[in-house]
Amino acid sequence: VPTQRYKLTVAYRGTAYYGWQTQYTSNTWKGPPPPNDELPTVQGVLRRALGGVLNHPVTIVGSSRTDSGVHAEGQVAHFDSDQAQIPVEGMRMAVNHQLPDDILVKSIEVAPPGFDAILWTVSKRYEYVVWNELNRDPFAADLAFHRWMPLDVVRMAEAAKYFEGTHDFASFAKPGHKRETTVRTVHSMSVVKEGSRIVIGVEGSGFLWHMVRIMAGTLIEVGIGKRFEPKDMAAMLAAKDRRAAGLTAPPHGLYLQWINYDEGSGFSGQGSPEEQEE
Amino acid sequence: VPTQRYKLTVAYRGTAYYGWQTQYTSNTWKGPPPPNDELPTVQGVLRRALGGVLNHPVTIVGSSRTDSGVHAEGQVAHFDSDQAQIPVEGMRMAVNHQLPDDILVKSIEVAPPGFDAILWTVSKRYEYVVWNELNRDPFAADLAFHRWMPLDVVRMAEAAKYFEGTHDFASFAKPGHKRETTVRTVHSMSVVKEGSRIVIGVEGSGFLWHMVRIMAGTLIEVGIGKRFEPKDMAAMLAAKDRRAAGLTAPPHGLYLQWINYDEGSGFSGQGSPEEQEE
Repeated sequence: VPTQRYKLTVAYRGTAYYGWQTQYTSNTWKGPPPPNDELPTVQGVLRRALGGVLNHPVTIVGSSRTDSGVHAEGQVAHFDSDQAQIPVEGMRMAVNHQLPDDILVKSIEVAPPGFDAILWTVSKRYEYVVWNELNRDPFAADLAFHRWMPLDVVRMAEAAKYFEGTHDFASFAKPGHKRETTVRTVHSMSVVKEGSRIVIGVEGSGFLWHMVRIMAGTLIEVGIGKRFEPKDMAAMLAAKDRRAAGLTAPPHGLYLQWINYDEGSGFSGQGSPEEQEE
Repeated sequence: VPTQRYKLTVAYRGTAYYGWQTQYTSNTWKGPPPPNDELPTVQGVLRRALGGVLNHPVTIVGSSRTDSGVHAEGQVAHFDSDQAQIPVEGMRMAVNHQLPDDILVKSIEVAPPGFDAILWTVSKRYEYVVWNELNRDPFAADLAFHRWMPLDVVRMAEAAKYFEGTHDFASFAKPGHKRETTVRTVHSMSVVKEGSRIVIGVEGSGFLWHMVRIMAGTLIEVGIGKRFEPKDMAAMLAAKDRRAAGLTAPPHGLYLQWINYDEGSGFSGQGSPEEQEE
């Protein structure tokens, strides 16, 4: 049976996991890691569930390495299998049956030859959710960042417009990112109030490590109105220095919403290999 | 300083707790329980937080003993304190600061003399939430009961009408409830579809142990349409036998929504002492 490549779309609540990427407790380990040394990660849990269903070891390559506590509505990964006799919807149902309640495989699709979840990425959307009420929400404390002071959403939206376009986002990257370039393109960015929630949405070709969380933290400070004005965003970008921007918002407000591919044309996209993102 | 009675309204996500009521791991213990023997309960966490703020030991009496995993939007309790110099809103903020993120004190009010959170209860509302989609919701798996098969909400609502009025609910009580009477009054009951959620709402003077969960489980079986018809509810009530009703729905779909008092008149309500409810 020839080996087939598959595209997998997955949603997860990141609260219980050490992020997407498989990690080991002994990170100075020289040889192969010992059994049971693995920390709980979404990739690790998925790998075991999928391997159990397919009855062979599976390597899962995810598009975005989401950090500990970060959520996803539409993370995308690829994997290979020669178990082509299993229909994809049956495979999906069987994997979901093996997975814990906080991870859901939304779809498994047969992918075009050579499909790569990282390299074929054309664009992505992240959302950062703020719970803007005096009282916290005891049912969703891990699903949004609680800020009780009133935030000025109009000013936040005005500031967000400065991030649209192609810029050097060095001021909005965690130092130590090891990227060749810190230039990225933000296609659109918006700030919308939905009841007690403020949703910061951003779409782009790719994002640097902590980039969305630093932009969100900075916009929250603009919304408070004491430290930053919307127009300060221009000088922040120009500084190319992390210290020029605002605070890094915590991971539990961040959602990877979707990843867009241009599979039909075999177009390899604008994406670059993402070593560590968000 | 004279001792003052207070009314406390609290919301909590029940997932992490062994229910409302303080419990000990050694339930056969004869003398006072040893330190650190207490299981995590909402009452226990609240008692310590409130005691820390008031700087004296506090006894908290809650209206409903919600079971492990059951949530509350509006549990009510009373307690006494002679720290009348602390304004109630300051007390509330300080207690919330001490509490974990999944418990929120919504209000603290000075109560009329003799106010009793159990005895003064006039009526209560519970909601049972079903997530009725093929896919589970990975962000709220502990906040609704996932049933993937399509449920007929019109039939469920028709069946719910049989529970309205004053009936002997012996068929809808967990055996071992030790109540003098199993007669209760349901003021109103509804089944509403809100997107992928089905909300079963019930208001009444009081409820027996597991009563809402057994009614919800039975209505879900009516919604599936294989085992029960709406008109079967009449015979179920008449049987006065737990075996006549349907399955007990799991605790994580249940919410104590509110408790109503007639404080102004000092009216002591229709409530009876609730030894164990839901």
